Amino acid sequence: MYRVMEEIRVAILGHRFMGRAHSNAWSQVSKFFDVPYKPVLKVACGRDEADLKTFADRWGWEEIETDWRKVVERDDIDIIDISLPTFLHAEPAIEAAKNGKHVFCEKPFSISVEEARAMLDAAEANKVVHFLNHNYRRCPAVVLAKKMIEEGEIGEMYHWRGAYQQSWLGNPDVPLDWKLKRATAGGGPLWDLGSHAVDLAHCLVGDFANVTCQQKNFIKERPLLEDPSKTGEVEVECAANILAEFQNGALGTIEMTRYATGRRNRHTFELYGTKGSLAWDMEDMNRIKFFSQDDPEHLVGFRDIMVTERCHDYVKEWWPPGHIIGYEHGFVHGVADFLQAIKSGSGLEPDFRDGLRSINVLEAALRSAESGAREDVPALT
Amino acid sequence: MYRVMEEIRVAILGHRFMGRAHSNAWSQVSKFFDVPYKPVLKVACGRDEADLKTFADRWGWEEIETDWRKVVERDDIDIIDISLPTFLHAEPAIEAAKNGKHVFCEKPFSISVEEARAMLDAAEANKVVHFLNHNYRRCPAVVLAKKMIEEGEIGEMYHWRGAYQQSWLGNPDVPLDWKLKRATAGGGPLWDLGSHAVDLAHCLVGDFANVTCQQKNFIKERPLLEDPSKTGEVEVECAANILAEFQNGALGTIEMTRYATGRRNRHTFELYGTKGSLAWDMEDMNRIKFFSQDDPEHLVGFRDIMVTERCHDYVKEWWPPGHIIGYEHGFVHGVADFLQAIKSGSGLEPDFRDGLRSINVLEAALRSAESGAREDVPALT
Amino acid sequence: MYRVMEEIRVAILGHRFMGRAHSNAWSQVSKFFDVPYKPVLKVACGRDEADLKTFADRWGWEEIETDWRKVVERDDIDIIDISLPTFLHAEPAIEAAKNGKHVFCEKPFSISVEEARAMLDAAEANKVVHFLNHNYRRCPAVVLAKKMIEEGEIGEMYHWRGAYQQSWLGNPDVPLDWKLKRATAGGGPLWDLGSHAVDLAHCLVGDFANVTCQQKNFIKERPLLEDPSKTGEVEVECAANILAEFQNGALGTIEMTRYATGRRNRHTFELYGTKGSLAWDMEDMNRIKFFSQDDPEHLVGFRDIMVTERCHDYVKEWWPPGHIIGYEHGFVHGVADFLQAIKSGSGLEPDFRDGLRSINVLEAALRSAESGAREDVPALT
Amino acid sequence: MYRVMEEIRVAILGHRFMGRAHSNAWSQVSKFFDVPYKPVLKVACGRDEADLKTFADRWGWEEIETDWRKVVERDDIDIIDISLPTFLHAEPAIEAAKNGKHVFCEKPFSISVEEARAMLDAAEANKVVHFLNHNYRRCPAVVLAKKMIEEGEIGEMYHWRGAYQQSWLGNPDVPLDWKLKRATAGGGPLWDLGSHAVDLAHCLVGDFANVTCQQKNFIKERPLLEDPSKTGEVEVECAANILAEFQNGALGTIEMTRYATGRRNRHTFELYGTKGSLAWDMEDMNRIKFFSQDDPEHLVGFRDIMVTERCHDYVKEWWPPGHIIGYEHGFVHGVADFLQAIKSGSGLEPDFRDGLRSINVLEAALRSAESGAREDVPALT
Repeated sequence: MYRVMEEIRVAILGHRFMGRAHSNAWSQVSKFFDVPYKPVLKVACGRDEADLKTFADRWGWEEIETDWRKVVERDDIDIIDISLPTFLHAEPAIEAAKNGKHVFCEKPFSISVEEARAMLDAAEANKVVHFLNHNYRRCPAVVLAKKMIEEGEIGEMYHWRGAYQQSWLGNPDVPLDWKLKRATAGGGPLWDLGSHAVDLAHCLVGDFANVTCQQKNFIKERPLLEDPSKTGEVEVECAANILAEFQNGALGTIEMTRYATGRRNRHTFELYGTKGSLAWDMEDMNRIKFFSQDDPEHLVGFRDIMVTERCHDYVKEWWPPGHIIGYEHGFVHGVADFLQAIKSGSGLEPDFRDGLRSINVLEAALRSAESGAREDVPALT
Repeated sequence: MYRVMEEIRVAILGHRFMGRAHSNAWSQVSKFFDVPYKPVLKVACGRDEADLKTFADRWGWEEIETDWRKVVERDDIDIIDISLPTFLHAEPAIEAAKNGKHVFCEKPFSISVEEARAMLDAAEANKVVHFLNHNYRRCPAVVLAKKMIEEGEIGEMYHWRGAYQQSWLGNPDVPLDWKLKRATAGGGPLWDLGSHAVDLAHCLVGDFANVTCQQKNFIKERPLLEDPSKTGEVEVECAANILAEFQNGALGTIEMTRYATGRRNRHTFELYGTKGSLAWDMEDMNRIKFFSQDDPEHLVGFRDIMVTERCHDYVKEWWPPGHIIGYEHGFVHGVADFLQAIKSGSGLEPDFRDGLRSINVLEAALRSAESGAREDVPALT
Repeated sequence: MYRVMEEIRVAILGHRFMGRAHSNAWSQVSKFFDVPYKPVLKVACGRDEADLKTFADRWGWEEIETDWRKVVERDDIDIIDISLPTFLHAEPAIEAAKNGKHVFCEKPFSISVEEARAMLDAAEANKVVHFLNHNYRRCPAVVLAKKMIEEGEIGEMYHWRGAYQQSWLGNPDVPLDWKLKRATAGGGPLWDLGSHAVDLAHCLVGDFANVTCQQKNFIKERPLLEDPSKTGEVEVECAANILAEFQNGALGTIEMTRYATGRRNRHTFELYGTKGSLAWDMEDMNRIKFFSQDDPEHLVGFRDIMVTERCHDYVKEWWPPGHIIGYEHGFVHGVADFLQAIKSGSGLEPDFRDGLRSINVLEAALRSAESGAREDVPALT
Repeated sequence: MYRVMEEIRVAILGHRFMGRAHSNAWSQVSKFFDVPYKPVLKVACGRDEADLKTFADRWGWEEIETDWRKVVERDDIDIIDISLPTFLHAEPAIEAAKNGKHVFCEKPFSISVEEARAMLDAAEANKVVHFLNHNYRRCPAVVLAKKMIEEGEIGEMYHWRGAYQQSWLGNPDVPLDWKLKRATAGGGPLWDLGSHAVDLAHCLVGDFANVTCQQKNFIKERPLLEDPSKTGEVEVECAANILAEFQNGALGTIEMTRYATGRRNRHTFELYGTKGSLAWDMEDMNRIKFFSQDDPEHLVGFRDIMVTERCHDYVKEWWPPGHIIGYEHGFVHGVADFLQAIKSGSGLEPDFRDGLRSINVLEAALRSAESGAREDVPALT
């Protein structure tokens, strides 16, 4: 018997890079995963009507709309997908929750802890399913890492060595867009890349006890978007490094930069524990390295696990072993679990609480960068 | 202005592994590529009606049909996609061509040179666009390799070292399915993997002058699919190795096996020339290694090129640099070019002539395996 | 004509791990390098006479002696090689210098800046050649890195990402030896590994402006060497991490640990600049990775340079290209240059000033670890 | 108590590349290994007296001699070390054996099976210890591979994929030296590199049943050594590939070339069996990759074993874990075992019988290259 699925109606806010990646996920999910709902791509919302029309046509969104307030109030929408710049997350997320919509939100979660708290409160008060799209959490290799940690393969943790390195700002001609202004972006790589890096540490290590942070601006002026003959001030840091101590006693480092020449999207971690170690790199995302103290003494070594076996979560729904998946697949996995969570009424991770958790760490790092001193990460209630 | 695309109507024969991969490609192509037609997934054809219905529902095929002859004769179909076992390629391909349908055919092309010749003749006689789906040819790293060769980065060629290694037959419980019978599969890894490996050599090196081949059967009996308590004879080789000389003077080796413990889908080549060298592995498909004699003497070394830059063909349509793509993307690239070729009236590679070329080499290898002697690869007219 | 070399007479203080590595270097150097002197292994000095005798016999030291003061005063000794634990460096080094001996000293240089300053002053006042054996500086890959930086291949520097990771203290049964006591070792990995890591950064990046450091003790008690049924306090840190800013504006991180499960001797750095990047790992010491912005856009990638070509310094004296060298070879290179410096009367790097420089940074790091705040690295006069 | 070792007196024939590597081994062995004899470097023998004198002085050979016949007849010599070109092995080896000297012989063993047989007969008839210096056999990673095979970690063997790739002949200016003439070299890479590659397969897989070989000459004329303005014919092949079947049923391939641009000394194998697989590369000689079917299903992967642990043979005599060794160390290991075999009166592998075994395979390959047909490898009695 073939599946007869209930439909669920989605509206998306935003139609740039993340709009594409999310649209793809909504349309791929029911083909590869046995989800409880078939997403209907109902409304695409944005401010540039011509671009929006092209986007909607290409991705199969039935309608377009330029006023997000109208969208979140529509009765025929079940899910609001927020694929907008950071500073535009809070208000739509809160209004969507108030209107009883489930919210699928892109990262970084928010500009501030204050905003994050309000978003979480709204989602919880209105009992909607809320999801923060840290896609790396559902990369099969990361899922396996978490499982190995839970199974005790790593033991007590000594060290987390994380980094998220990009290089696109090495070119001084890159203009001053919203990602380089504090009001719209929240921060530089500390926010954009650090939100991922901190969330990954939350997922695999746990909560931070304290952080020490150092930041730097390498290129301080850039061409204006609106008039490249003039330049304006880069308001966010170019790179940031964090020293951390985790509540479980592990030491950590996290490096975040857009100036690591030759690294395009290297989100990487090393984790060292009493029983074993792990190493992963998003640029080689289908593999994870694992060292086990349990191996015979003469045969110890980092094992290069290609996470494409039939027993590996998510990837088994795609292709046979040895056939790798790519960047966008993590989005499909997130959508699949989000739909499942709506059906079951349970939550899923990472959610708005995880968003608050990460912004809370990043704000402490920002304070440390300014004070030059170690800062405790405040407890969240 | 957004795109208004003409529709083009597709029927697919087959609904297993390749049916999924092809369906995905037909539905993804117009989202990521600026193709001249929007594919309409019209009919899915297969013999198991219940499975077929589930398949059609999941992938969005409008209708199902169990008789392929009816499908190829329908006026409302423009493209026939053959995703069937090898022995079922020739007849539908020929009938489709006779009915003026463009044909998108899965590999291995055919059971024999005789079949291959008939398929090519039919396609050419009826002036349809014909395509053989060697997906690896449109892996961006392979496309870059070809471009580098054409730009002279490699120079005259000395050595091709190819291999296609899998391991799924290491388990003696794997049953005797169609891939292990000569009549349905044509051959073992020589056909299944060798057709890819030989086509890749055709693409990057050129035509073969002669081949010497050695084969082996490691496990000679396997459980019957229909009654696992009984066993039947494995009719095809378990592994085959080829020595080759190319018409351009290069030496070559090609190894094909389903018994390379730990290798899941390792399709790899090394190419050595007077000016440079290349190395690639499908299990790490987004990268290619390149050694250049032009580098300063103290800085020579194999460069690890991550083929995800904005200037790299195909991949630039997906995501930003450093965001890798996976196995199925090559199918989308093939479909995109196929649609373009239909529009422009030009052909595209690899086509049925390339299919004939490969089967011609494989038949020579088979003769060599039997004779124990070097065999010239017959010239094709 | 064959070489007639003047002899130069060496006395070594210490006969454990470093005594072996140094002895090997003194006896290998004139075989592989065209040095101006042939070292004569004159006296080996240590406190355990039986062990010392075995050592001298095996390595060819002509005499033994248990009182280092007698050795440094002998007229028939030209060079004093200090292969002792850290806390025993200063006094013999100073006395040797006062007696006009050239000093070849093992790292970490000293317990404190105060000691370091006194050692440097003595060496300079007495105009002897002084050398600090940071062997990694003469690993051919590191030599190439320095040359590339000087040739402008890296450009202005953005990031230094250093680490020195070992794992031998993961085993709680490892006893409390001199390396775990502050008075004898100076510090834990901050001193032992950090002295190397800081010196490498000095060599390739330049001076530090400020440091922020975090330390941790994972295992606080260990079995006593003299009575394993009892335990004593581990007085030095188990791991330390540093954030740094360099005087040239680059940001840096350095991780030092003896608890990185699976890493045996991983001394590694990544260096990112405006024009290129480098990455190196001592566990794979014959290679260095290099990314160049000058490569054609479609061919960029980290180049894996095997530093064994005939044009590569030091390694060309050993074997043909592709024949790698190992750990001890760096010691031979240091001895070769030390002998050359004695002949020419010039100095060589790293010397006692470099020793002072490193200890100066480590002491600032120690202060930061205690204060939790960023500490400027004091200027040296 | 320290060691009092008996002395053993060595004479070396040859003073070029291999003369250096062997001299180093004779002088290093008693420092790092507990050998039963201390080698005395007695006589160096060669035809160019000036060069020989420099060589002897540098390496510490007590005397020089230009007539090898006088050397092998001297009463005060215990060991003859043959470090000469291939065509000069047989006569001195036979005469040395007749004079009761133990023989340490460089590879390739001989020009022909006929010579090899005579050499073995002489050594056995005179009951001397005979050793063929396939240094790779004592690379710790290869030793571990053999141990793993014996322990059953690999199981029954399916595939051997070997290669020995160099690139130094890519340059057409390299002159026509003894390695390019059949009478002096025996063959091209088939002999020079193939003797290593075949011996490694003998060591790890076992005897060959049959071989099929294809050869090629890429550059047919080269400058004469004696007058570079003239050219002469390259008499040996530039590259050769072998297909093989082993007596244990495994299939094999071996590639040998001096035209693999970018590969300096890449001696590599992959071995696939029912239970596990191995992969190794001499350019990264301190590591071996191991895949085990015994690993938990979700944790399978090739393990990267750094063969520098305290439990690993040979390497444990050098430095602590993580401190790699280099090319020449294998020679020291061979000398250590050779001295032990003299003391114990037992033989050691590889010996002259192994030399005969390899040349026997290479001659069969040569016959196959000429006939174009598979050739059985003749049984040795």
